[in-house]
Amino acid sequence: MRHLIDFGDLTRQEWDELYARASSIMDDPSRYIDACRGRVMASLFYEPSTRTNFSFQTAMLRLGGTVFGFADPNSSSVAKGETLKDTVKMVSGYADVVVMRTPWEGAAKAASLYSHVPVVNAGDGGHMHPTQTTADLTTITRLLGKVDGLSVGLCGDLKNGRTVHSLVKALAKFEDIRFFLISPRELAIPDYMRTFMLEKDMRFTEVTGLEAVIPQLDVLYMTRIQRERFVDPLEYERNKGIYILTRRKLERAKERMLVMHPLPRVDEITVDVDDDPRAAYFEQARYGMFARMSLLADLANQPRLDRTETVEIGTRPVCRNPRCITQTEHYLPPLVKKNGGVDCCAFCDGALS
Amino acid sequence: MRHLIDFGDLTRQEWDELYARASSIMDDPSRYIDACRGRVMASLFYEPSTRTNFSFQTAMLRLGGTVFGFADPNSSSVAKGETLKDTVKMVSGYADVVVMRTPWEGAAKAASLYSHVPVVNAGDGGHMHPTQTTADLTTITRLLGKVDGLSVGLCGDLKNGRTVHSLVKALAKFEDIRFFLISPRELAIPDYMRTFMLEKDMRFTEVTGLEAVIPQLDVLYMTRIQRERFVDPLEYERNKGIYILTRRKLERAKERMLVMHPLPRVDEITVDVDDDPRAAYFEQARYGMFARMSLLADLANQPRLDRTETVEIGTRPVCRNPRCITQTEHYLPPLVKKNGGVDCCAFCDGALS
Amino acid sequence: MRHLIDFGDLTRQEWDELYARASSIMDDPSRYIDACRGRVMASLFYEPSTRTNFSFQTAMLRLGGTVFGFADPNSSSVAKGETLKDTVKMVSGYADVVVMRTPWEGAAKAASLYSHVPVVNAGDGGHMHPTQTTADLTTITRLLGKVDGLSVGLCGDLKNGRTVHSLVKALAKFEDIRFFLISPRELAIPDYMRTFMLEKDMRFTEVTGLEAVIPQLDVLYMTRIQRERFVDPLEYERNKGIYILTRRKLERAKERMLVMHPLPRVDEITVDVDDDPRAAYFEQARYGMFARMSLLADLANQPRLDRTETVEIGTRPVCRNPRCITQTEHYLPPLVKKNGGVDCCAFCDGALS
Repeated sequence: MRHLIDFGDLTRQEWDELYARASSIMDDPSRYIDACRGRVMASLFYEPSTRTNFSFQTAMLRLGGTVFGFADPNSSSVAKGETLKDTVKMVSGYADVVVMRTPWEGAAKAASLYSHVPVVNAGDGGHMHPTQTTADLTTITRLLGKVDGLSVGLCGDLKNGRTVHSLVKALAKFEDIRFFLISPRELAIPDYMRTFMLEKDMRFTEVTGLEAVIPQLDVLYMTRIQRERFVDPLEYERNKGIYILTRRKLERAKERMLVMHPLPRVDEITVDVDDDPRAAYFEQARYGMFARMSLLADLANQPRLDRTETVEIGTRPVCRNPRCITQTEHYLPPLVKKNGGVDCCAFCDGALS
Repeated sequence: MRHLIDFGDLTRQEWDELYARASSIMDDPSRYIDACRGRVMASLFYEPSTRTNFSFQTAMLRLGGTVFGFADPNSSSVAKGETLKDTVKMVSGYADVVVMRTPWEGAAKAASLYSHVPVVNAGDGGHMHPTQTTADLTTITRLLGKVDGLSVGLCGDLKNGRTVHSLVKALAKFEDIRFFLISPRELAIPDYMRTFMLEKDMRFTEVTGLEAVIPQLDVLYMTRIQRERFVDPLEYERNKGIYILTRRKLERAKERMLVMHPLPRVDEITVDVDDDPRAAYFEQARYGMFARMSLLADLANQPRLDRTETVEIGTRPVCRNPRCITQTEHYLPPLVKKNGGVDCCAFCDGALS
Repeated sequence: MRHLIDFGDLTRQEWDELYARASSIMDDPSRYIDACRGRVMASLFYEPSTRTNFSFQTAMLRLGGTVFGFADPNSSSVAKGETLKDTVKMVSGYADVVVMRTPWEGAAKAASLYSHVPVVNAGDGGHMHPTQTTADLTTITRLLGKVDGLSVGLCGDLKNGRTVHSLVKALAKFEDIRFFLISPRELAIPDYMRTFMLEKDMRFTEVTGLEAVIPQLDVLYMTRIQRERFVDPLEYERNKGIYILTRRKLERAKERMLVMHPLPRVDEITVDVDDDPRAAYFEQARYGMFARMSLLADLANQPRLDRTETVEIGTRPVCRNPRCITQTEHYLPPLVKKNGGVDCCAFCDGALS
């Protein structure tokens, strides 16, 4: 693996190696204190994401590496006078690895075409956020000993949740997962995800209530429901209580079930749950740091390419997704890939016709 | 000492050890170049304070440690989507020590309840700023060889100055201090501080002029008088010259007197004083860095607590101080402490009745 | 050399040493991995300049040093409550070297008067940007093996370009340079630069077209032409194409000619030039980092002065340049120097009468 743009870039074996190293780091962090000594990470956050930013920074620092970059849109406006290509050319001349967060879908993929060093996607709009998935899988594997064979409840807004979709896709690499999809009907998982699960022979049950299924779960993955997602605000008010996890609802859960959440939470998990031994969401953030350490220990030590490959020069976007990076960076090549037989934009994965 | 929230948390012996290590660092900084190797400091500045921020950062860097965090309210707005508790849980999963500056009184105390690692208060509103006090005492001890037995002039706005109140309280740990309190009557030291000094058998003399007492001082601690503090702006204009230190006023001071100032200054010390050997305010900033190095060399190396103690969950504030952290973070426990026999909020020290 | 304020501060021998070390770093960066271990750089950017900022930061980090400071005007507003002198006194108490970027001409020179550690000018308004020049000369020397005897084309806005003026002055230290000055008449090189070249016996030819002279060049240094610089916008529209470098125009250039640009570019070099082996502008940014490494390896390791020299206290500016630092910092001394027999402000180089 040269870049991490999409969790799907990893084979199961690459994931197993990544986790094994993360686990080794957790067992004895002092062994890795110089793993990135002399290496420099660029951290380009074109939109703020304090948590992800802190996690990547501390991951690199704990490996003995160093960090530069920007953390918010105001600072990044500075770099907006030039194309993404030119920024990447500059930054990859200074850095050994580039971590990018952007509001534009496909931006990390675009950057990887021109970069002299590995690129990590730290979130590109609503598209991908692969290191959130590595954090989630690291948490489950570390705390439950395995991923295969688990019953996983996904609760909340399953329609819009990038985190949830990524996790479902990632779990397709494992054996014998059973999903409980817990959401209001308005926010049920999209059809293409349902198709994906069917194609992969993954078992899933869709329900609208949390309490009935909680006893069956090994993992309960909570996400936030935003009022704005509802057509009818009254509908939101009537329903929100169902999807709030409380200490009382936890009573019927398995003793070793994990409560997970990508954070930040608003009120979807009450404060009294925090002290329950099943609450894993704060550790999950810490495991995310270890997972990123494992990733950076590999990528930041890869050799720099003095010359990158020549890339075809585009003239206008072939993709119609208005949030796709190709809409603004017209020199990008007109790359197409097949997703399940359908022609899609190779940057944002949007269907082309 | 696990956290430094209030200088009063330190016993005289703990202070002596802290100073001894600061002194040893100044004598030979190269011995401490790896004292925090592999350790990471979180620097959370919910309000800007360039000087304090730089001092903490360089302290950590000079110990071989590293730093991440945010420096201004815009960046921190990012973290405002969640409770202080959740932010602390996340950050103390990434860091080995947390340094916090906030506009809310009691915030550092609140953070310490939930943190897996030590918390340092870098200023919580008008409440406490203990590392300013460690900087002040380090400067005096280093340059005059001792603190016991000194005559200390405090000049300027003694009513509102947090720095001055902290210093007075800290000096209660020492023997035989004599204060000269130099201020306009409108900005005299508050009654509760006068009560404090009487209870501690500290000698003090209140005067309205600087020139008459300057020959008696070993330390002259200058602070700023802000025009806004005066009910009558004309009164400000008539008086301000009295409290400005000039080279001429210095003529009658002792040869080894120290001129101190927490900085930044506006015009309360004229530029021609800077070259006088008694001017210690720039070195004071540098001594502050060494004092913080001494503090961090201890705190950043303390073991992480994987599980923090369970904290009672509050429902609404018992404290009526509108600037107290309990006003916005309602889950905080209703902790009460006694200050001189009076029930006070354990976060902001405000009296409860 | 104690400070680097102006490239003219360097003798030819000092430059040769600086380049030799830069070259040695490029040959084997691992030898320099601890060259600034334990050293701390202050990076004070009173105006944003992402590229220069990143270059200095990564230079210091790659030497094993560390960095603190601010990156944009909002953060720096914090430090604006005090004089430049007080900021420099504070910061040089914390740091081993201070890198400064300001919109005020002469600010770095002013800072150097009060600093306990070396100061590097990272750009002071339209005045000087000496490390851009070290980047340019390092690129030429590394890629062409020498600077003496080259034919150098300067193309674009030669009237306002600080980069270009600095480069011309720097090349006066070398032998047998021949310039081709390629610009619209409205944006021709200023008279005082023409006088400078004549005094130094430098050969130059002024032309308005790029294509005719391109075959003669060893270096083509492109700069941006801003529409706002033209009195008549139509004139801009008619002319701009002449000064855009395309793959087609490159056809007649020497095989080893270098295309350089200080970046960021807008459209003055078309994207299809990027893959031509003569395109050196992205490497130029990387060479700038190595040149800054060479500089910092020297300056950050110089001894700290505990006492700085006493500086005369000024009362009002003698210089009339409204962008000069003496306009706002009135305590600065009334320093005068001779530039070619003319009395000039020692801060901003503005003529005094």
